Amino acid sequence: MSALGTPGPGEAVDRFARSAARWDHAPVEGLDWLAERAAAHPFRVERVPFAELDGWSFDPGSGDLGHRSGRFFTVRGWDAKVEPVDGPPRAWGQPILDQPEHAILGVLVAEVDGVLRFLMQAKMEPGNCNLLQLSPTVQATPSNYRKVHAGAAVKYVDHFLEVGPGALLADSLQSEHGSWFAGKHNRNMIVEVDPDIPVLDDFRWFTLGEIGDLLRLDNVVNMDSRTVLSCAPVPAIKGDALHTDLELMSWLTGLRARRTLTAGPVPLGALTDWVRTPARLHHVEDRYFDVVGVAVQAGSREVTRWSQPLLAPHGTGINAFLATEFDGVPHVLVQAKVECGLADEVELAPTVQATPEHHTPGAAPAFLDEVLSAAPSRLRFDVLLSEEGGRFLDAVSRYVVVDVDPFPAPDRFRWATTAQLSELVRRGRCVNVQARTLLTCLATEPAR
Amino acid sequence: MSALGTPGPGEAVDRFARSAARWDHAPVEGLDWLAERAAAHPFRVERVPFAELDGWSFDPGSGDLGHRSGRFFTVRGWDAKVEPVDGPPRAWGQPILDQPEHAILGVLVAEVDGVLRFLMQAKMEPGNCNLLQLSPTVQATPSNYRKVHAGAAVKYVDHFLEVGPGALLADSLQSEHGSWFAGKHNRNMIVEVDPDIPVLDDFRWFTLGEIGDLLRLDNVVNMDSRTVLSCAPVPAIKGDALHTDLELMSWLTGLRARRTLTAGPVPLGALTDWVRTPARLHHVEDRYFDVVGVAVQAGSREVTRWSQPLLAPHGTGINAFLATEFDGVPHVLVQAKVECGLADEVELAPTVQATPEHHTPGAAPAFLDEVLSAAPSRLRFDVLLSEEGGRFLDAVSRYVVVDVDPFPAPDRFRWATTAQLSELVRRGRCVNVQARTLLTCLATEPAR
Repeated sequence: MSALGTPGPGEAVDRFARSAARWDHAPVEGLDWLAERAAAHPFRVERVPFAELDGWSFDPGSGDLGHRSGRFFTVRGWDAKVEPVDGPPRAWGQPILDQPEHAILGVLVAEVDGVLRFLMQAKMEPGNCNLLQLSPTVQATPSNYRKVHAGAAVKYVDHFLEVGPGALLADSLQSEHGSWFAGKHNRNMIVEVDPDIPVLDDFRWFTLGEIGDLLRLDNVVNMDSRTVLSCAPVPAIKGDALHTDLELMSWLTGLRARRTLTAGPVPLGALTDWVRTPARLHHVEDRYFDVVGVAVQAGSREVTRWSQPLLAPHGTGINAFLATEFDGVPHVLVQAKVECGLADEVELAPTVQATPEHHTPGAAPAFLDEVLSAAPSRLRFDVLLSEEGGRFLDAVSRYVVVDVDPFPAPDRFRWATTAQLSELVRRGRCVNVQARTLLTCLATEPAR
Repeated sequence: MSALGTPGPGEAVDRFARSAARWDHAPVEGLDWLAERAAAHPFRVERVPFAELDGWSFDPGSGDLGHRSGRFFTVRGWDAKVEPVDGPPRAWGQPILDQPEHAILGVLVAEVDGVLRFLMQAKMEPGNCNLLQLSPTVQATPSNYRKVHAGAAVKYVDHFLEVGPGALLADSLQSEHGSWFAGKHNRNMIVEVDPDIPVLDDFRWFTLGEIGDLLRLDNVVNMDSRTVLSCAPVPAIKGDALHTDLELMSWLTGLRARRTLTAGPVPLGALTDWVRTPARLHHVEDRYFDVVGVAVQAGSREVTRWSQPLLAPHGTGINAFLATEFDGVPHVLVQAKVECGLADEVELAPTVQATPEHHTPGAAPAFLDEVLSAAPSRLRFDVLLSEEGGRFLDAVSRYVVVDVDPFPAPDRFRWATTAQLSELVRRGRCVNVQARTLLTCLATEPAR
């Protein structure tokens, strides 16, 4: 097996696998703990007009919506043009979130009784439909931990800023939503610590198996947890993948080399298809998403009161892998997807990544019908999960894995094993955030 | 050994290693062949004022220098600001080459008598000090092979556009000079073919050992050959590297996550420190580089007459690795270098990458003195090599590997094995073009 397919240090693979197969607590205990933490903190989020956002304003020249500190993020205009090799070009303008800072998304792990435990946080994010979800140990931008907020210190962040020798288990830069963010990357880290470190309020140890249970419930495990956990090494497959690792990577390289995307910032005020009202920025046909303002009161955040813009998508997205076996070796069907805000233009995405209501009848994306009409017995995973609640309001997507009979992959698609995709995840910036969530779902799947 | 350190398919490693240890022809035969090809073609390159460049002009608004087709490349202005975590910020403006197209740099290989042979080309580039150098089989942008030139077809390019099953040996996107190009990437490929393919004029088979011989002569093997060959897998080291592969990659990830560079295009005419005369664009203090025009007459290119701008650096650069052993395991000292045009901000660079005359006395880069004052017996490699002759005029750098006694790496430096760096090369966009040249030098080093 080539370098790409090697699952990482064998010992680390085994340690994560053992934790994925271990349950010391029933899911309800985790849910009870989350409910208790939610009750302990008086969170309140309400929609407010832009004029009531404290510290945020529209630039008189560009119309961009930014914070007076120049930090956090800015809502800008974005012009995009895609010129497919086969097919007509498409060009459009849209608002986009520009966040130059790379956040750290970090999970601490510790071994107890020979099994890795993950220190997870009950964290409120204003955009989450249920406010509080299971989050990584640390989820913080430099603005957070360098105190632009003028709030409390970010707990446990020092473990990620200064990693002890041998303690690092994963570390890579990963993209986030390529149609909502302009070239955003976060640093995803897993770091091992002494099991005796203090466990603060709002934090709790979970095995990977227990997190997998919670991941199968609607809107419990947040996006940041899902992407960090996708960086854990997974066991190598037994048997041959349909494509070599080099062929798979070459396919992505070749598509990136075509340069079919041209995209860059424009003044937000110059977008012709977007309308700003006192309460929201929206598309003239009320499609895609709105940008809105919220005011937050919270007890467990670095500061206890703030307001900010959020991107509020229209409709429920669907992210699905078709899965099958070739010669007994499990594969999923990945799509090479151009997204206008991806710094690398193209990443590997789920088979289907779409919001059905955005598509006119007859122009549905490939395989959407197969997913929507799949028999329940074919669904290995089917759950509603929230996208990042610090930037997106009620952004809920349906995540699905559908078992299908094998068939040849069409253009722009390839069959790949989860071990191959996992290795690409650890390379960074090859597998998009929706596909990474599905990989975490598959990696925590109980043995069948 | 982890995934990162795995040297790729063992069989491929052995095949490249066998070719690196095989010589069927003395270096003089290769030189004679290059001289013969040079004599067969009436190349002439002369400096011309900008006004005589056919198809190239300065945009009346921005002052950018571009081609009327909008293709090839554009000389733009570039504003850069680096804010190091420790140290004062630096900000400057400069001209930069903007070439959105990804070229294919491809070498065909074929096995004869159990040994891989590399199909190399005698290719003229107008900026080369000796015009003709040993080049990859294919070195072409989509503009070349899709006929914007209205010239002859690019020979052998089909082997890279449609790769046969099992024929792919390397394929990755790589950066080029980060202080002269804005985010330029090329696709570096090695593809195996049937040894019976026709060998056209200006092409010849070489073993890797023979190419290594020529690489040790001044200005014979061009930059494109060097970067493609750096993508070949190298044998794993015996013994432990000083850092694990994950630690090495994490170090690069952490530096990238800091976002210390802010850079982007500005109108070329708006640069305050740069002066345009009819014959050249230059810095007010005559430092760094000029942009000039050349007119070319050639027989073996896709078109036989053209003119174009070139970037003409001042002075001779020096790119050097310090090399040593830890517990008998060879390491080189890599630098994490921010370059203003790198799409990924930071890549791993040689220990020293500098142009001595650009530095005021007393402010020399780290380790420059060690390299310049090294005893001849410490120099494992010391040769003058040309940077890409299609964009740079007389851009000659001294490439050096210096044996030193072991010492702890200072901040911004790490000791790494060549196998580790080779794996990072195959990931793409982690190791800069100067370091890749040095890796090719080391990979073709005769056994000591």
